[in-house]
Amino acid sequence: MTPRLAGVGEILDLESSSQRFPATLLEEKVATRLREAGASEASLTAATRAMLHASLVGVDSHGVRLTEHYCNMLAGGRLNKNPQLKVDIRAAGSAMVDGDDGLGHYAAYHAVEVGIELAQKAGVGAVGIAHSSHLGAAGAYALAGAERGFVTFATTNTDSMVALFDGAARFHGTNPLAFAAPVPDSRPWLLDMATSSIPMNRVLLHRSLELELPDGVAADKHGGATTDPNTADMLLPLGGAEYGYKGAALAGVATLFSALLTGTTLDTDFIPMYGGDDISTPRNMGHFVLVIDPDKFVGRELFGAMITRYLASLRSAPVREGAERVMAPGDREWEEMAHRQQEGVPVDPDTIRFLGL
Amino acid sequence: MTPRLAGVGEILDLESSSQRFPATLLEEKVATRLREAGASEASLTAATRAMLHASLVGVDSHGVRLTEHYCNMLAGGRLNKNPQLKVDIRAAGSAMVDGDDGLGHYAAYHAVEVGIELAQKAGVGAVGIAHSSHLGAAGAYALAGAERGFVTFATTNTDSMVALFDGAARFHGTNPLAFAAPVPDSRPWLLDMATSSIPMNRVLLHRSLELELPDGVAADKHGGATTDPNTADMLLPLGGAEYGYKGAALAGVATLFSALLTGTTLDTDFIPMYGGDDISTPRNMGHFVLVIDPDKFVGRELFGAMITRYLASLRSAPVREGAERVMAPGDREWEEMAHRQQEGVPVDPDTIRFLGL
Repeated sequence: MTPRLAGVGEILDLESSSQRFPATLLEEKVATRLREAGASEASLTAATRAMLHASLVGVDSHGVRLTEHYCNMLAGGRLNKNPQLKVDIRAAGSAMVDGDDGLGHYAAYHAVEVGIELAQKAGVGAVGIAHSSHLGAAGAYALAGAERGFVTFATTNTDSMVALFDGAARFHGTNPLAFAAPVPDSRPWLLDMATSSIPMNRVLLHRSLELELPDGVAADKHGGATTDPNTADMLLPLGGAEYGYKGAALAGVATLFSALLTGTTLDTDFIPMYGGDDISTPRNMGHFVLVIDPDKFVGRELFGAMITRYLASLRSAPVREGAERVMAPGDREWEEMAHRQQEGVPVDPDTIRFLGL
Repeated sequence: MTPRLAGVGEILDLESSSQRFPATLLEEKVATRLREAGASEASLTAATRAMLHASLVGVDSHGVRLTEHYCNMLAGGRLNKNPQLKVDIRAAGSAMVDGDDGLGHYAAYHAVEVGIELAQKAGVGAVGIAHSSHLGAAGAYALAGAERGFVTFATTNTDSMVALFDGAARFHGTNPLAFAAPVPDSRPWLLDMATSSIPMNRVLLHRSLELELPDGVAADKHGGATTDPNTADMLLPLGGAEYGYKGAALAGVATLFSALLTGTTLDTDFIPMYGGDDISTPRNMGHFVLVIDPDKFVGRELFGAMITRYLASLRSAPVREGAERVMAPGDREWEEMAHRQQEGVPVDPDTIRFLGL
């Protein structure tokens, strides 16, 4: 067997095969390409912001490399170049946003704004999004709410890629759950997790590096767990061979909120994001955003004191032998962001070419 | 090494050492004991309902065996025998419920009712609960909302028992996340999961049966993963050695909603539920309930059609070799409930004695 590569979160191994560029340059190039592809200023601004977020915190799979894909989908007609968002306020705390088949980032960021407006009055804002498309990293939207001072949850369902517990076919997507909370004088607490253990591009990475996969993260086409990246055909839900029913159910939570409550496409029914023939039909993807105003609960000041104390306690917790330290959700991302703001963002050769860097 | 017992969800192995009794008889006996301990009718009715839910769906750790513990806490003064709930409607979609230090089940069921009232008008109701106590199985409250036709989320933080990822001390509780959704002409979709892989009583069970634990679910007192139930001193978060940062963050979500937003006790600060000297001081436990009205999103009828189609697709998914079938969250619980309604609920000898069965 080949040596084993440890799981390293959502960070792609771009370091070896790539060059680094300043975020500001990438931002300009991404926006330029989307503009050339015909995207409206409002929608390309949102997409650029979300891709830069992902590229800065180290989620390269959802970063600037997606620019070319989005440009292709704008050209093919799957994505509406000039979407007109429609907001339907359904009640004091709830709304539906219709993304008009444009770039999903635009609808999702707007839904956060709508959620904040609702939460400021109702204490909570729950916003379903329909007729949307790929939104990049769900964490970008949880973060957008937290940066404005609100506890925020964002989720989406995605293309089938993950087996059910005891299943032998792709069923749910990697369906992320993203939560963020404001922290006084600090970057937010931020969790952006796939409900599978690893993303599919991790399998592809292991395949190209000829490295064995960890146990219980992928299965062959019969649903049997495998550590061979070459026979891996689908992902397994978080929790592995024994507790994967929890990860599968969490993926179902994403589908429940994103697709069932919004009346949009089920994971198994999506026109494939990549690799299919059809790049002209909109995918009617759904998302969901929940925004909570701490002022309508314990109060903003006491909430700030509580989360500050909680995080101090967490970060000073005793460390097990062999580990370096204990981190809070987001800590690794903010460190990576600081590093990349200093050293530049790694970009793969194909994307360097496409962006004209 | 001793043989390995497979993980079997939250079901305690009561089958061998116990007798079975009809649920109606248990309900009567539990209520009688709580009444004798001085609990008000309103609070004992809620506690009995929640314990019977747990006992019927097979979560025996949170079932009727807790009656004696609650009676002791009522006697000791930790629990207020006659709590007067206070509801503070903070805005159109948000409220705080003060449990007045009574049985937590009472405050939590009432919070679901408040959430439903808010959601019927605002589309969503977010309810924080403070000055509460142990609420049993969080799924009982998600279920209560779903049985009334609402998508419902319920969570609580609990006594420290689970290490952080790379940590060497108990930090979070087993902090459950419970979600439920109504399904037309069927029992609800129901997820009630600890954010650790297993509960602590599973470790105790393996210890008494001299069975090895699965990999990556428990750690010794230095935080090192162990499969020996005798050296296991704390639990590990869902995701095990490689992906436990996800489970740890999900435990943090429970704490974020239950304690930080409500201004109640952090996991590490709780007076111990069991085994401490202090049974007279209230624990100021917090919970959180979120209720969503499908009518304010896609509409109740279409939501019902969507979830029906989703569940049919899930249950008919191909099964991997060696497995019997694919189940939706809740399916196992509803089967267990049907079985126990027929055959009776297994009760351990100590509880048989205490209830006077």
